[in-house]
Amino acid sequence: MSQEDMLVALQREVESLKNKMSELEKRAGAADDYIAISNLQRTYGYYVDKGQWDDAADLFAENGTLEIAGRGVYKGQDRVRQYMNNFPKYERGVLFNHMQLQPVITINAESGTAKGRWRTFIQIATLDVEARWGEATYENEYVKVDGIWRIAKLHGFITFYSEYDRGWDKGGVKLVRSFKGLEPDAPSTYNYEAWPEAFIPPYHYPNPVTGRRNNGSV
Amino acid sequence: MSQEDMLVALQREVESLKNKMSELEKRAGAADDYIAISNLQRTYGYYVDKGQWDDAADLFAENGTLEIAGRGVYKGQDRVRQYMNNFPKYERGVLFNHMQLQPVITINAESGTAKGRWRTFIQIATLDVEARWGEATYENEYVKVDGIWRIAKLHGFITFYSEYDRGWDKGGVKLVRSFKGLEPDAPSTYNYEAWPEAFIPPYHYPNPVTGRRNNGSV
Amino acid sequence: MSQEDMLVALQREVESLKNKMSELEKRAGAADDYIAISNLQRTYGYYVDKGQWDDAADLFAENGTLEIAGRGVYKGQDRVRQYMNNFPKYERGVLFNHMQLQPVITINAESGTAKGRWRTFIQIATLDVEARWGEATYENEYVKVDGIWRIAKLHGFITFYSEYDRGWDKGGVKLVRSFKGLEPDAPSTYNYEAWPEAFIPPYHYPNPVTGRRNNGSV
Repeated sequence: MSQEDMLVALQREVESLKNKMSELEKRAGAADDYIAISNLQRTYGYYVDKGQWDDAADLFAENGTLEIAGRGVYKGQDRVRQYMNNFPKYERGVLFNHMQLQPVITINAESGTAKGRWRTFIQIATLDVEARWGEATYENEYVKVDGIWRIAKLHGFITFYSEYDRGWDKGGVKLVRSFKGLEPDAPSTYNYEAWPEAFIPPYHYPNPVTGRRNNGSV
Repeated sequence: MSQEDMLVALQREVESLKNKMSELEKRAGAADDYIAISNLQRTYGYYVDKGQWDDAADLFAENGTLEIAGRGVYKGQDRVRQYMNNFPKYERGVLFNHMQLQPVITINAESGTAKGRWRTFIQIATLDVEARWGEATYENEYVKVDGIWRIAKLHGFITFYSEYDRGWDKGGVKLVRSFKGLEPDAPSTYNYEAWPEAFIPPYHYPNPVTGRRNNGSV
Repeated sequence: MSQEDMLVALQREVESLKNKMSELEKRAGAADDYIAISNLQRTYGYYVDKGQWDDAADLFAENGTLEIAGRGVYKGQDRVRQYMNNFPKYERGVLFNHMQLQPVITINAESGTAKGRWRTFIQIATLDVEARWGEATYENEYVKVDGIWRIAKLHGFITFYSEYDRGWDKGGVKLVRSFKGLEPDAPSTYNYEAWPEAFIPPYHYPNPVTGRRNNGSV
């Protein structure tokens, strides 16, 4: 082979390597993103457990939104912060655990956005007053701003709240639909009731094997 | 250095880069696989919660198998679908939550197969009839067909079922061992009883530090 | 372009590819590490469930430490093993489930070390004697020795223990602070009480969005 042929062959190989590399960089980024988004949502949970509301609100993008339990949509980090600070202070005799579980995360690396389905398993109590079990499904969105993943949308569908002493079979606690003096910026996007009513929180993704849409309607 | 020497040196470097690249591609694939398998099993859980049996069955490979609670082995997607559709319809007054938790996933990228140990924490209820807590360990297998991960084997070992009102200390609910008119294709691969009996569901992997096999026998 | 110019250009490209490659190798390693550490801690949980104490102790580094529930620090794998073997044998009538949930993992690939915040949701029972719910937050450390991730530090802060029959609202079970004949090697690093007292287990990481330190003090 002439030197020129060798050079041309090498150029082709280097070109192919560069393409593979940029493909790989995207895939490696997806792993980084997966870890970052997982850590983000789980950290949200740890903050909520302990009433660290300002830290929790800081996890939202500037124009991030929050919608929980059919109480309407709160728009922007300031309103999210206001909503959160409406909850009781964490102190002796307050239990407010919100375990963040079972993530299904779908990342769009090109656009720097992602969606995640999670569930939270809830244990709440006020000493000598009441104790409850609860569960909610989240369908959340995330956005990468300045290289840092943030919550773009947190949407929690509470599926049951039950008194600890009564259990689930005797019905559930009705959802609180509004907080006095804390009007939402927009009405709820879904109309539903928690247990014992039936409701399938919508999925952000199709069946991962068949690709068929499943909108979660009963 | 002569141009020829430079060329030869470059060729060697490109060759080394190509090898590293193909090594890296395998590793990047493992991350993609990890995310896909995690999403797959967790999606199975969300479908089971809500009685979306056809969607759940679609997650199985054509020749996938299902074995739960010592009820025998159901072979092939059709029989899995039949088994699932035997359960009550999701509707008002039916709670059937199966949280998918604590995955230990082992991927064989070369063969496009994987194994996963999971546990499910279960809350079930029929309004005004009964409520239960339950837990099961899964030892599952996955297979990549046409670029999509599917469930090759789902094996759930139920470790306890307890009436909500009685708690665990007063014993458990006996496992249902068969469903009328729904004979399995093969007998159970393990003989065990749930709580209060002792049973260690077998592990698909050795101790990750010592490498010693631990077959989970008491 | 002369052959020499082509060669020089190629050399520059290959150099750039090599740099990107070594950057990518680090990132791909982080994904491998994430999976390995996740599998490690979850396997610890499965072993604890079933009283597989020697297998659990084997997951610790030679100089690994264990500190749980304010009982002091046990230093080195041998003392960890001794601490663990102090617990009741797994057998009929013993339930000791410790689900490993909600990991926030921070990896330092350069140093081969990592930290992880987890929580465990606990169901324990002795048949005909007692049943309890419990929850703990872990702040753990991991170290890669001979290419294998091990537990360098396991620190569990129990946040509540409640009798199943009483629930949370009526207060909690006091933490057991020491085991007879099993003196720790060093006193507890934190002084705290479980529910109904308030305590925020310290975080190993700052707020992931603002970067502000949050030491978890109430």
